[in-house]
Amino acid sequence: MSTNPDITRHLEENRLAGVVTHNGLAYLAGQVADDATLDTEGQTADILRQIEALLADLGTDKTRILSVQIFLTDINEIGNMNKAWDAWLDTGHKPARATVEAKLADPDWRVEITAIAALR
Amino acid sequence: MSTNPDITRHLEENRLAGVVTHNGLAYLAGQVADDATLDTEGQTADILRQIEALLADLGTDKTRILSVQIFLTDINEIGNMNKAWDAWLDTGHKPARATVEAKLADPDWRVEITAIAALR
Amino acid sequence: MSTNPDITRHLEENRLAGVVTHNGLAYLAGQVADDATLDTEGQTADILRQIEALLADLGTDKTRILSVQIFLTDINEIGNMNKAWDAWLDTGHKPARATVEAKLADPDWRVEITAIAALR
Repeated sequence: MSTNPDITRHLEENRLAGVVTHNGLAYLAGQVADDATLDTEGQTADILRQIEALLADLGTDKTRILSVQIFLTDINEIGNMNKAWDAWLDTGHKPARATVEAKLADPDWRVEITAIAALR
Repeated sequence: MSTNPDITRHLEENRLAGVVTHNGLAYLAGQVADDATLDTEGQTADILRQIEALLADLGTDKTRILSVQIFLTDINEIGNMNKAWDAWLDTGHKPARATVEAKLADPDWRVEITAIAALR
Repeated sequence: MSTNPDITRHLEENRLAGVVTHNGLAYLAGQVADDATLDTEGQTADILRQIEALLADLGTDKTRILSVQIFLTDINEIGNMNKAWDAWLDTGHKPARATVEAKLADPDWRVEITAIAALR
C-alpha cells in the first residue's frame, strides 16, 4: 500500500508507471506505438491517440499538455512525424516541444514521446 | 479562445509554443540559435541570450531556472558549449543540468536547450 | 546571497547544481556513476544508490520519484541497466520512465539518469 497519498500511479508495467500524477500534474513515461509495424507517421498517430486516451482517463485532455519531448530514431523522419502531429494538434493549445534523434529500446520503434500535462 | 485560463502559451509557432506557463512554472520548448552559421560556442551564447530575453518577458530571470537539458550534435563540443555557459552562468544560482548528444532537426544546429524555470 | 528564498540548490558543482528544489519538487541534474570503470549494470546501481542518498538528504525517498529519464550510450545494454533497476525498484512506487540512447560527456560513462521527485 502506498504511503504517498498525494502521488498516483497509472498504467503500471513491470518496471515503470505509464503516468504518475502529483500536485496537479501528470508525468508521462515514454510512450511508444502499440503497432510497431507502422511507419513514423503511423506510429506517431498511434502514440498521440494513446496519449489522448490516457489524458481522458485522468479527466484532462490535450488542451492541457504543457510540454512534450519527442525522440525519433531518424531525425530525417521529422516531416513524417509532423504530418501526424499537425493532424492531431489543437492549434489553440500548443505545447512546448523539443524533438531530437535517439535510438530507442526496440529497433522497430521509430518514435517515443514523453509529456507533462496539467490535470483539471 | 482558450478554455484553460491557468495555462498561458507564449512565442507561438505553427507546431508548438516557445514557452508554456502553468502554476508558477515556465516550460521552455527546445531553443535553437537564431544564427545557425555560428559554431557551438556561438550558438550556445545565442540561445542563452534568447532564454534570458524570454524569461524577462515572463517577468522572471535566469536566477530562477530550475533545470536545463542540453542536446549537442557532437558531444566532443561540450568544452566549447561550456565556454558560453560559463560566461553566462550566474554562479550564485546554478540550475540542475544534463548534457547529452543528439542529432537535431536542422543539420546546421549544433545545440538545442530546454529548461524549466520558476516565475516570480 | 540568493534572492530566491523559494529555490534551494544542492550538491553544487562548478557549472550546475546536482539538485534544485522548488515548490515541493526536486529537479535532479544528470547523475553519472562515481566509478566509471563499472559496466552498465554496475554504473546504474551506483547512480541509483547516489539518487537514494541525495533524496534522503532532502528528507524524501525513492517512493516519491515521479519521473525518470535514462540515457544509455548503447541501447542494447538496456537489459543490463534493467537488472540494476529491477533490484532497486520499489514495485509499489514505480516512476514514469523513458530510456533512450545518447552519447554522454565522458566516454567511460555508460548511463546517465535525470529525475523529478516530490519532497515531503
